[in-house]
Amino acid sequence: MTAANFNVWLQRTRSAVEKALLDAVPSAKAKPATIHRAMRYSLLAGGKRIRPVLCCAASEACGGTVRHALPAACAVELVHTYSLVHDDLPCMDDDDLRRGKPTSHKVFGEGMAVLAGDALLTQAFAVLAAAKPKRSFTAADLVAELARAAGSRGLIAGQVADLEAEGRKPSEPALYFIHAAKTGMLLRAALKLGGMCGGGTKAQIAALDRFGFALGLAFQIQDDILDATQSAKKLGKTAGKDAAVGKMTFPSLYGLERSRELAEQWTEEAVVALRPFGQRAAKLCALATLILDRDR
Amino acid sequence: MTAANFNVWLQRTRSAVEKALLDAVPSAKAKPATIHRAMRYSLLAGGKRIRPVLCCAASEACGGTVRHALPAACAVELVHTYSLVHDDLPCMDDDDLRRGKPTSHKVFGEGMAVLAGDALLTQAFAVLAAAKPKRSFTAADLVAELARAAGSRGLIAGQVADLEAEGRKPSEPALYFIHAAKTGMLLRAALKLGGMCGGGTKAQIAALDRFGFALGLAFQIQDDILDATQSAKKLGKTAGKDAAVGKMTFPSLYGLERSRELAEQWTEEAVVALRPFGQRAAKLCALATLILDRDR
Repeated sequence: MTAANFNVWLQRTRSAVEKALLDAVPSAKAKPATIHRAMRYSLLAGGKRIRPVLCCAASEACGGTVRHALPAACAVELVHTYSLVHDDLPCMDDDDLRRGKPTSHKVFGEGMAVLAGDALLTQAFAVLAAAKPKRSFTAADLVAELARAAGSRGLIAGQVADLEAEGRKPSEPALYFIHAAKTGMLLRAALKLGGMCGGGTKAQIAALDRFGFALGLAFQIQDDILDATQSAKKLGKTAGKDAAVGKMTFPSLYGLERSRELAEQWTEEAVVALRPFGQRAAKLCALATLILDRDR
Repeated sequence: MTAANFNVWLQRTRSAVEKALLDAVPSAKAKPATIHRAMRYSLLAGGKRIRPVLCCAASEACGGTVRHALPAACAVELVHTYSLVHDDLPCMDDDDLRRGKPTSHKVFGEGMAVLAGDALLTQAFAVLAAAKPKRSFTAADLVAELARAAGSRGLIAGQVADLEAEGRKPSEPALYFIHAAKTGMLLRAALKLGGMCGGGTKAQIAALDRFGFALGLAFQIQDDILDATQSAKKLGKTAGKDAAVGKMTFPSLYGLERSRELAEQWTEEAVVALRPFGQRAAKLCALATLILDRDR
């Protein structure tokens, strides 16, 4: 696959995802209008859509299509968006800026932001329940996988550990746990759900899981580096915040140079996990490189 | 069915529900311990379990068993509990007391209470995805139904309308909308899910839905009356709060006497909806009477 071919695929897939997301939540006119405006405000703010695109690429790697993966891709992005809305609340990270716009509670008030997050999370399961995987797996299998990844031993476990670690002395195990749970679980779920929708075998889905684990760490290390080095304007969210609140990050523990090396190493590790797929994993490999090289 | 038989059934069903709820969330020792302690604190605080019991009775009315309905019964109670935890937050209703104990955010802090609510909601779908309905319906059908009832056009729509109505002039349509959404949607879902798990026909599930709509209103009118007339000690939550914050309620709109009449009328309406079931709906009828006559 040439770089040009990959870029065409990426653009086409992103726009399929954007289109599907438009229909994944009720219209802004549906009553009560406030909640639907708040849901759409955060969901359609033009994120990078990394998780949905990985989900679609995983489906293709297993012999499925982007279309097979779209409900799962939307569900994962709905969960990701809900977690940002709640994470930004004053009682959590207290952030004013997200995806280049004021955060949900700044625009709609705290109560409505709590409800908008709740509604996005609930909608994720509504969308996923309607998925039609290519074979082997049922929609209920997808729901079980997403609930596990998003739940109290997945994404939420990472947020809890993050909340409890602030201001404490950084340690490698604690840092890996937070990042593996907070970023890794949902990224792995995106890939596994894509594989399940695309009719993957158990072995293929296990390989996608290993890829996702390593990629999640590479992704989060890069995120930490960007927070420490880029401007808020570039990132579309508050920058330099991790250091300001004493948050445990890779740069705070290892310094920037060693963090960059680690991000590269975890990306290599991720690519190794894709070997069983051969050429069919070309897009997933290209996405891993893209994640490592991104500047926002 | 004699009153004694009903009471035995009710006690047995409640204890089956309590037992299932114990296993419906990770143990308090599972890491991270804080979130699991917070989830169990609110879930196992000894609520009246009205929704799970209705769910089980609906399964039996359709020819299923309590066992068929237990995953759905737990899922509905998980959603109900999450909605209470978030509803009690300072940015929402700001309540200190629930089920006779300090509210989640008073014990665990606001951030953890947000996450505990999120985790309870997520766990509801994990539990439901593992359900094995008797026939006709899949676990994915159950997930779709619960997500619809709990989502931005269901339970959450009611909370939004409630949030937006505070201090405004009460009107009958607004009041009915809030109560039908906030209480009614989840109550109807409990009944429909029970019917689906028990192998009910579409006609039976439609009848359960009509029963749930009327019962939800009766339930909420009675709730409003209790808030206006009972002590906090009796209710296990702050009393007289509706009037204090200018909340729209049946007593504020109609006065207490007329509200009592309305609660009775909606209960009668509910019982009429059960006619197609004949004697098989005896437990559902008894539960409707119990809801009307309760004093907390």
